[in-house]
Formats: sequence, C-alpha cells, structure tokens
Amino acid sequence: MDQVKGKLLEKINNSTDLKKLKEGELESICSELRDYIIHVLSTNPGHLGASLGVVELTVALHYVYNTPYDQLIWDVGHQAYGHKILTGRRDNFDTNRKFKGLSGFPKREESEYDSFGVGHSSTSISAALGMAVASKLKNEKDRKVVAVIGDGAMTGGMAFEALNNAGGENADLLVILNDNNMAIDPSVGGLNKYLLNISKSHTYNRFKNDVWEGLGKLDGIGRKARRFIQKNQHALKNMILKENNLFEAFNFRYFGPIDGHDVVYLTKVLNALKEIPGPKLLHVITQKGKGFKLAEQNQTKYHAPGVFDKETGEIYSCDCPLEKAPKFQNVFGETLVELAKQNDKIVGITPAMPSGCSMNLMIEKMPDRAFDVGIAEQHAVTFSAGLATQGMIPFCNIYSTFMQRAYDQVIHDVALQNLHVIFCLDRGGLVGEDGPTHHGVFDIAYMRSIPNMVVSAPMDEIELRNLMYTAQLTKTGKPFSIRYPRGCGTKPNWNLPFEEIKIGTGRKLKEGTDIAILSIGKSGIYAKRAVKSLANKEISAAHYDLRFVKPLDKSLLNEVFQKFDKVITVEDGTVQGGFGSAVLEFMAENGYSSEVKVLGIPDQFIEHGTPEDLYKECGIDTKGIVKTIMNLLKK
Amino acid sequence: MDQVKGKLLEKINNSTDLKKLKEGELESICSELRDYIIHVLSTNPGHLGASLGVVELTVALHYVYNTPYDQLIWDVGHQAYGHKILTGRRDNFDTNRKFKGLSGFPKREESEYDSFGVGHSSTSISAALGMAVASKLKNEKDRKVVAVIGDGAMTGGMAFEALNNAGGENADLLVILNDNNMAIDPSVGGLNKYLLNISKSHTYNRFKNDVWEGLGKLDGIGRKARRFIQKNQHALKNMILKENNLFEAFNFRYFGPIDGHDVVYLTKVLNALKEIPGPKLLHVITQKGKGFKLAEQNQTKYHAPGVFDKETGEIYSCDCPLEKAPKFQNVFGETLVELAKQNDKIVGITPAMPSGCSMNLMIEKMPDRAFDVGIAEQHAVTFSAGLATQGMIPFCNIYSTFMQRAYDQVIHDVALQNLHVIFCLDRGGLVGEDGPTHHGVFDIAYMRSIPNMVVSAPMDEIELRNLMYTAQLTKTGKPFSIRYPRGCGTKPNWNLPFEEIKIGTGRKLKEGTDIAILSIGKSGIYAKRAVKSLANKEISAAHYDLRFVKPLDKSLLNEVFQKFDKVITVEDGTVQGGFGSAVLEFMAENGYSSEVKVLGIPDQFIEHGTPEDLYKECGIDTKGIVKTIMNLLKK
Repeated sequence: MDQVKGKLLEKINNSTDLKKLKEGELESICSELRDYIIHVLSTNPGHLGASLGVVELTVALHYVYNTPYDQLIWDVGHQAYGHKILTGRRDNFDTNRKFKGLSGFPKREESEYDSFGVGHSSTSISAALGMAVASKLKNEKDRKVVAVIGDGAMTGGMAFEALNNAGGENADLLVILNDNNMAIDPSVGGLNKYLLNISKSHTYNRFKNDVWEGLGKLDGIGRKARRFIQKNQHALKNMILKENNLFEAFNFRYFGPIDGHDVVYLTKVLNALKEIPGPKLLHVITQKGKGFKLAEQNQTKYHAPGVFDKETGEIYSCDCPLEKAPKFQNVFGETLVELAKQNDKIVGITPAMPSGCSMNLMIEKMPDRAFDVGIAEQHAVTFSAGLATQGMIPFCNIYSTFMQRAYDQVIHDVALQNLHVIFCLDRGGLVGEDGPTHHGVFDIAYMRSIPNMVVSAPMDEIELRNLMYTAQLTKTGKPFSIRYPRGCGTKPNWNLPFEEIKIGTGRKLKEGTDIAILSIGKSGIYAKRAVKSLANKEISAAHYDLRFVKPLDKSLLNEVFQKFDKVITVEDGTVQGGFGSAVLEFMAENGYSSEVKVLGIPDQFIEHGTPEDLYKECGIDTKGIVKTIMNLLKK
Repeated sequence: MDQVKGKLLEKINNSTDLKKLKEGELESICSELRDYIIHVLSTNPGHLGASLGVVELTVALHYVYNTPYDQLIWDVGHQAYGHKILTGRRDNFDTNRKFKGLSGFPKREESEYDSFGVGHSSTSISAALGMAVASKLKNEKDRKVVAVIGDGAMTGGMAFEALNNAGGENADLLVILNDNNMAIDPSVGGLNKYLLNISKSHTYNRFKNDVWEGLGKLDGIGRKARRFIQKNQHALKNMILKENNLFEAFNFRYFGPIDGHDVVYLTKVLNALKEIPGPKLLHVITQKGKGFKLAEQNQTKYHAPGVFDKETGEIYSCDCPLEKAPKFQNVFGETLVELAKQNDKIVGITPAMPSGCSMNLMIEKMPDRAFDVGIAEQHAVTFSAGLATQGMIPFCNIYSTFMQRAYDQVIHDVALQNLHVIFCLDRGGLVGEDGPTHHGVFDIAYMRSIPNMVVSAPMDEIELRNLMYTAQLTKTGKPFSIRYPRGCGTKPNWNLPFEEIKIGTGRKLKEGTDIAILSIGKSGIYAKRAVKSLANKEISAAHYDLRFVKPLDKSLLNEVFQKFDKVITVEDGTVQGGFGSAVLEFMAENGYSSEVKVLGIPDQFIEHGTPEDLYKECGIDTKGIVKTIMNLLKK
C-alpha cells in the first residue's frame, strides 16, 4: 500500500506538508495522487472521473492558499477526493462512502479543511460569498475564499444569483470555473456552446504564451505580480475573446481560459490572482478522468464506475441480488419509450440526469421529444408546465432529493394550474452511499401537501409501469407524481401488458387477523417479508400496499380500521408529515381510534452506508418491522 | 365612467379590435389606457407602477401579435393590468383583486389571453420555451411566443436556467427584457450595473437613430423588414455595445436597448423581430409609474400604493383595525435593528423585499450588515449559510410563499449542517388580495419535516419580538424559523423588554373543562375570540398557544390529552401534514385516543379576497371555530 501512496504522498498530512515540496516536485505529487485515487477507487467504488480531472488544481490550490484558514469550497464535491487525501484523510480513504467511514463529499464535521458541506450542485459561489462578506465584517483582510465550480454546475440558476450578488457587493472572492464540458453526461445549453467557443479559440494559447511568459520572467510573486497583472489588466482584457464578457457583465474580472493540467502554471496564476481584490473568475480547462485512458474516453461511464480493474479499466458491474430483476431506472427508461411510441403527446424532460434516470433511452430513440435541460430543476418543471399548456404530456424525471430545488415550481406553475405533468421522482428513500445530501426522504411529505397532486409510489417494477401508464391517460389530466427507489427491483418478469390502476386505490396483499401493515412503495417488500416471518411465529398480519399517498384509498382504510385495533404504517420517507401522518389524519377525520405505530425515517439526517445498513439503522427493514409488531402485540 | 374609459378604449374588447386602430391612434389609446388604469386603481388598490410602465409595450404587443393564438407571458404579472383591460376585462376591471373578482395576475382560467398563470418571479422564459417547443413538435410554424420579463425578475436563477436551455434548443421565442431598473425596490447586483451601463451608453441613441431610420424608410413590413434585418444583422451586432454579449453568450440574438414608451417605434421593431427565427432578446427601457408624476418619482411607494387621490397622488393609508397596533412587518424591522445593535454578529438578508418586510430599516441604519441580494431566494439562503459558518447570525427574511423557492437550500445547506440561521417567514397564512400564488400556507408542513429545524409561529407582536430574541441567542445555535402573518397585529404596546421563550414551550391562555383548543400563530387570535364567544354559550373551552410546531411542547400536550376527550387544533396553514398533523403524530406515539378535529386550510388552492373573506371561507375565523366546537360537542 505504501508504494501505492507514493514517496511524496505518504508524507503529506496537511497543506503545510504540501507547501514543503519544491516546485519541481509538484508534477510528481500529482502523479502519485492520481495513482492513489485510481488504486483505492478500483476496489472502493466512488466518483472517479471528476477527482482525476482536478488533481493538478487541487495540488495547486493547497500549495498556494493558506488552507484551512483560507477557505476552499468544492461545488457538488465529487471532485474533492484529492483534497481529502491531501488533508489528513489519506490512510482512511478506503473507508470513503462506507457506513461510518468518510463521506463521499466534503463535510464540515469531517475536517476543518472542508469549509462547506456539499452534494447538490451550484451552491459554492453563494457560500463563498457569505464567507467573504463575513471576513470583511470581521476585518480579516488576509483571508481568501475560493469556490471551484464545474461548467455543468454553472447552469444551475443559483450560481447566477450568486454571481449577480457577488458582483454587486464587489466582494473579494475567486471563482474557479472548472470547465470539462461535462456534468455526469455531456453539458448542454447555450452556456456550454459559449464556453466551447472560448476554449477552441486562439485566445487559449495566446493567454498561455504571451501573458504567461511575461509572468514567468518575474522571480518573485506578490507585489511584483500584482503590479504586472494590474498593468496588464487592460491588455489582458482585450486579449481575451470579446465574448468573455458573460462574467464581466456580472462585474467579475475574467481570467483564462488556462490549462488545468499544468500544475506549476496553475500555482503561478493563483499566486498572482491572490493579489487582485474584488470578484474574479478563473476559467480552467480540464479533462474529466484525466490520466486514466478509459475514463478519459468514456466520461459518463467512468463518472462513478463502481469496482473496476485498474490495469484494464474493466468495470465489474454490480449484479442485482435477485437474478435478472432490473433496476427501477431501466424499467422507467424502457417504459417511457414504450408509452411514447403509443402516445405522441408524451415528451421527456431531465435536468442533466439522462444516464442516471435512463431517459437516455428516449433521447436516443426520439431525440426531438426528450430534453436534457441542464442542471436546472426549477426550469425543468416550469418548462414542463409550458409544454403541458399546449396539450403535451411531459414526464419530468427528477431525483427525489433534487426535486426539493423545484418545490415552488411544482406548486406554483404546475399544481395551481392543474396541469397534466407527470413527475417521476427517482431515488426516493434512502439512496445509500451518497448519504444525507442525496437521500430522498422528504418527498412524500412535501408532495402530499400540494393540492391537485396525485402522490403515488410503486412497490415494484410492475406497479411502476402501470402507474406510468395510468398517469399519461388523457382522463387522468392532472399533476401526478410517482416516486420509486434507486437500484434493483424484485420482478424478473416485469415487462407485462399495461394495466390501468384506478387512482386512489390500494391493494390487499394478504389477509390477517392480529394486526394490519399499511405500506407504501418499496417498504412493501420489507413488509411482505415481515409478514412471512411473523407467520412462522404464528402471528397473522394483514398487508395492504396503498400505492397512493394521495388520494388515500378510503374504502380500504375503512375496512382496516373497522377490523383492526392495531395497525402499523411503513414508509421509507420521513415520519414528520409523511404517509403515516396522512393515515393518522384520515383516522382523526373519520373518528377511528385504533392503536397506530408509524414506521419510517426518523426526524434526523441519515448518514451514508449501504441501503441495507441504513434501513436497518432506521428500523424499517424486515427485522425492524417484525420487532415493532412483536412489541406492539405484547402490550 | 365611459368618459374615463376613453373614446378608443371603450370600443376595444380584444386584440382584433385593437388592430383596427390606425398607427396614428396608438398614442391616444396608450393615453386612454393609462388614464383608465390610474382612475380604477385610485379607488381599487392594486399594482400601479408596473402596469403604467408597460402601457406602450402592451399596446404594441397586442397590435403586432396574433394574440391569443400567439402567446404572451407576463413574468410576475404585476404589469399585466393594461393587458387585461385590452382583452375583454375592461368593464369588470374594478373587481380586480376582490373576492370572486378578477385576479391581480394573469390566470389561465380567466381568459384565453392569459397564456400562463404567474405571480412568482422569473418563470416566464421557462414557460415560453415549453410553449415554443410544443409548437415546433405540433408543427405550428406560424405561432409566436413572447415572454416579458423585468430586470428585477432577470436576477432570479431560473431565468438563467431557461436562457441556457433556450439557447441550446435554438427555440423560436422572443424575450422582452423590460428594464426599468426596479424590482419593488431598486434593482441590485452586478446585472443591474451592467444593464445601466448599456442604457446610458451612446448605443441607445445610435440604435434608434441609425438603425431605425433605415427600417423607417421601408413602406411595408414582413419580407422586406426581414431582408433588411438579416442584411444588417452583422452591422447591428457590431453597432451594439460589445458588452451586450451577456445574452449572446446564451446563444440569444440581442436587440436594443430601445425606448419602451415610443409605441409606434415598438410596433415596428416587434414586426421586424417576428420575422427573425431562433431565440431573441429585445431590451426595452421603461419607467415604472410612467405618466403619473408621483409614481415616477417614488417608484417603491407607488408599486402598490393602496387607495390614492388620482389628482394629487396622496395615498390614503389603510389603518390597522385596532388603533396603533403595528404591522408585524414593522415589529420585525424595528426589532431586528434593536437586536443588531446589541449583537454585532447579527446580519440581515432579504431577497429583494427590503420595503415589504421592513428590512429597509436595518439597511438604512447598518448598511454594511444588511443585504438585499436581488430576487434570489436560493442564493439568499445559502449566502446566509456561508455567513453562519463564520459565526455570523443571519436573519434571513423571506415571504412564506417565496421560501418554497429555497426549500432545498434550507435542507441541504443550513439544516444538514445545523447552522445558526434564523428564517423569518413573513406573510405566513392567507395573504388576501394577492391570492393563491402568494398565500403562505405550506410552510408549517414543509419546515417541520426538516431535521434540526425549530419551527415557531408567534400569535402576536410581542411573541414575534421574543422569538426573534430567543432565536439569536448563542445557546440556541441552530436553524430556527419564525413565521408570522401579513399586516396588522393586536398589541399597541408591543415594544416591551425582551424575554427569552424556552424553545419548545407553549402557554396556557385559558383553563377550561369541555374542550381544548390548540392553536399556532395568528390563529390563536381567532381561537381566543372563539373561547369568549363560547363562554357566552356556557361552553368552557381551554386554550393553548403552542408557539412551537417543532419541537412540540410534550408536557403541555400530555396535560391536554390526559384531561380532554375532545380537542381541536387550529392553524392558518394546510391541514395536509401541518401543525394538526404533528399533534396527531404525538398522540399516536404516546397512545392517546382523544377525539381530535384538525382545522386549517383545506387541501385546495384558496382564491383571492380580503383575509376576512378567506378565513371565513376556510372555516378558521372565530365563527368557524365556534361552529366546529359546537358540532363536536353535540356528538
């Protein structure tokens, strides 16, 4: 292992150690760091491509800046593995994304070097501005703040809100635009075209050759560099393409684009920029997956490849536990294409997650009718609303956790106008290794508060298909949300003919006499197993799969509460206002007084780990359900 | 009245009628429309300034475009009064914003001319893009889509998300940037500076004189204009300031800036632009309040002035019903300044609502510590989070309905990191005349789902002060939300010394024996009156003001459920997952089985009207509470 860590890397435990290196050693440390990331990730799955792309930038930043006093914010955080390894987390980096191990993202609790916890996109400039303003108020004049944001994340609206505010405040911060022309999938939109134009232009090399030669001649940095840069500001500005004014329009000084893989050059530029006050943007061109051939060639595949062979790059795909049962994502993708073939009103919308949610299938087959709108959940929803006003039927697929970004648009632009938009909330429930930033645990609660909204969750792939079929029927004609989990299902034979599911109807999966279990969504699988396990203990539990949180199946619930004194509800969402709460509201409204125990995600943020670990932790796996029922029946 | 309508205006019931006017009559119709708006609004309060500013633009758009087949989307919609009057709603325009009357915003149900319902900012480009893409898919080649968006709304992130996507799709749509240098308060940020620079530059006049003279020489429009424009595209582009590339960076063709009060000129430009395919942005300079002297001079005051004298401009301020009791907004503003004087860690953040929420008091007195960040709720929250990481204590004031825009940031950037940010949710509950887009009815439900978050709501101004005091104490140290209503309170002597309120404690306002009322926030006022009214009927109702939705006062609730068989909960928020639901969860968890009736906003969108009308409609005014209790006790 020590050999893998590299001679230089093994001595570096913080940014002070890094600063001891000579300029001539910087390329070697980058090489060692890159090898170490590839080595550890080949057996401990994580986000490979992004971190490889910023190895040089990471080294340069910690070499130049006085971290952790100077503050470094990594947007999204997929790219921060190098940062973690250099700042005291080298030796336990193999616990990355594991239960009780390191987080896959920067996290304040984990290290003082992690200035701001991240996970969702486009937050870094806002946070950095807050820090810069605080430093100003506290009169910490020497303290620097740097935000590193990808070109994908730059399409998220809040990044522009922050640019606008920062430009107005004239705050002292540096935004580094890490332009690799990729989100998880290739970047899209007008901005992407614009950045590509800049990068391909002559200016790229002109900046490097003409300007940098000048800087290179200086023997020191600091004042001299400042004088140089200040003197050359105007020339620099003119030298850079005229179109670069996008950022200057926001009152940022724009520098670049420069090569993000030339580590020495990066340290010089950063040193120079340290001396320039006010809001600055440095445009850095990098390659996602840099230094690992296959990752360079197929950047989407190697974004987070799972376990792979570090020599050949072969990816060992993670089989679903039940042979041949597909992922929910594949069922969504294939079903969408199937439905869209039958119904020419159907269109697909994804905010930058075509491969993640499998809408790439529709994008390939019907490119005119499927839209990757960029990292832009708010826009995705209102764009869908606009389409729906014209009689189109949008399937707008957004991960549960990211739908939080578009909550207002769902209420204000879709539900209030009662438009026929179908929201597919992928990755509902506990997502596993991505942890608290990515768990989809609030959606049941926040969607069911919205008038006009149908809120559904399939227990398995067949229900997912049939809910998708039901949602697009003309007679449905209203906002319809379907949330389903990340990963594998349980039905090898999922591809059955479509069947309409009457809106607001659940189903009885098993009769019983001692207690009734009401489940929603994937939790039904655990509930079903719990029923079997209870039967072995001679406990007769009835099991109902509600399918709809809203409208609730009143006739089913009347049956349950008339028959059972003891009832439990199970969901993989928060218990604060969720499905169980909806059942309690039904009871209060209808004067029932059975004893009800609500099982779900407790009122706390759940850490990362395998889904199995986490379901167990929350007491909503099979054993947890059985235990709760045993306790309830003891009383 | 007919004289007020004007000779031309009285004949115009739709855009076809408008098109019958000769070019020489356009200035007259603008003048009549402007007079009519001032006349009606002087006695029927509404949004004056914005609508006066776009009179010429409104006339030009309906004159040139084939509305409603061509689709016109007004961002926010404050400016759409002229549009409403010209499209069939002249004679009932005096019902504007009244119960069962016209909506203060464009609304699809109200007219086919209202292509898209609006209210919240920055949605128009997304919706327009959806419509444009739908027209393309439906092969409606002749159909045009126009979005009109203010420079204030342009700072909202989703506007940029939409620009990026539209530029990438190369969709056929026109965005009109209505640049009046104002949101409700003056516009802020880098973008504002940029637009001002453009407007002040020579180009403005050069565009008008050089280019337009050329167009003016054409005797027809259509093909000839197209040829002219196409031939001159390159020249035009070069003629316009180089900095104009902000929009061109998104692959939009930029035109302007032009004078938005020259109606004939506007019709010519619009006619020419109709012929140019792809995404286009026309930058129009207007003056908010145009044509009404005082409104021109004090644009914030006359944004929505209430009742005023149309000759002198004098505003008749709407007195609070209880003499001298202040608005909650004033209490917030003054208390914030008072606390900030005592605690130098406190900073204030508002997304473009300084006068609405009264943070202007702090901005005036402590300009370095109070921030108007633009229409940018997402950024406002994460900026606050950044400040909090450095030990500052941000009071981030966002209207309840607009906080929906920042839901993800509250969860992901503040609560997950357990940062000490204080959210003041102004305008919680039913706001009245602004209607369903602006009611703050979801916040209790969506905030209480968030781990680490304290969720509170004061019943009166004194509690508001004390909650604000409590929230900023160092020992509190965590996310804390305080929601309070729009408008007047009930306590003339509100300015008492601060008292800490122990987090998670309610208070017993009255003992009772027959039934217990649990209220939260402003609903406590109605509950208190109901208790009195019930006493006259010899019913003894206890009344508890919970103050905190989270954490709930368990000891108080234990007392209540041990003592009372019948309980009602009252809130001015949705019953789906709200305060009542939290109480039901407590009962289930603790095995109580009292009969509970949950009163609140039902599961539907509530229309506009006076707050009194609406509280009555929802059955949560004093009479409604009394009635519910009488029914409950009859059983």
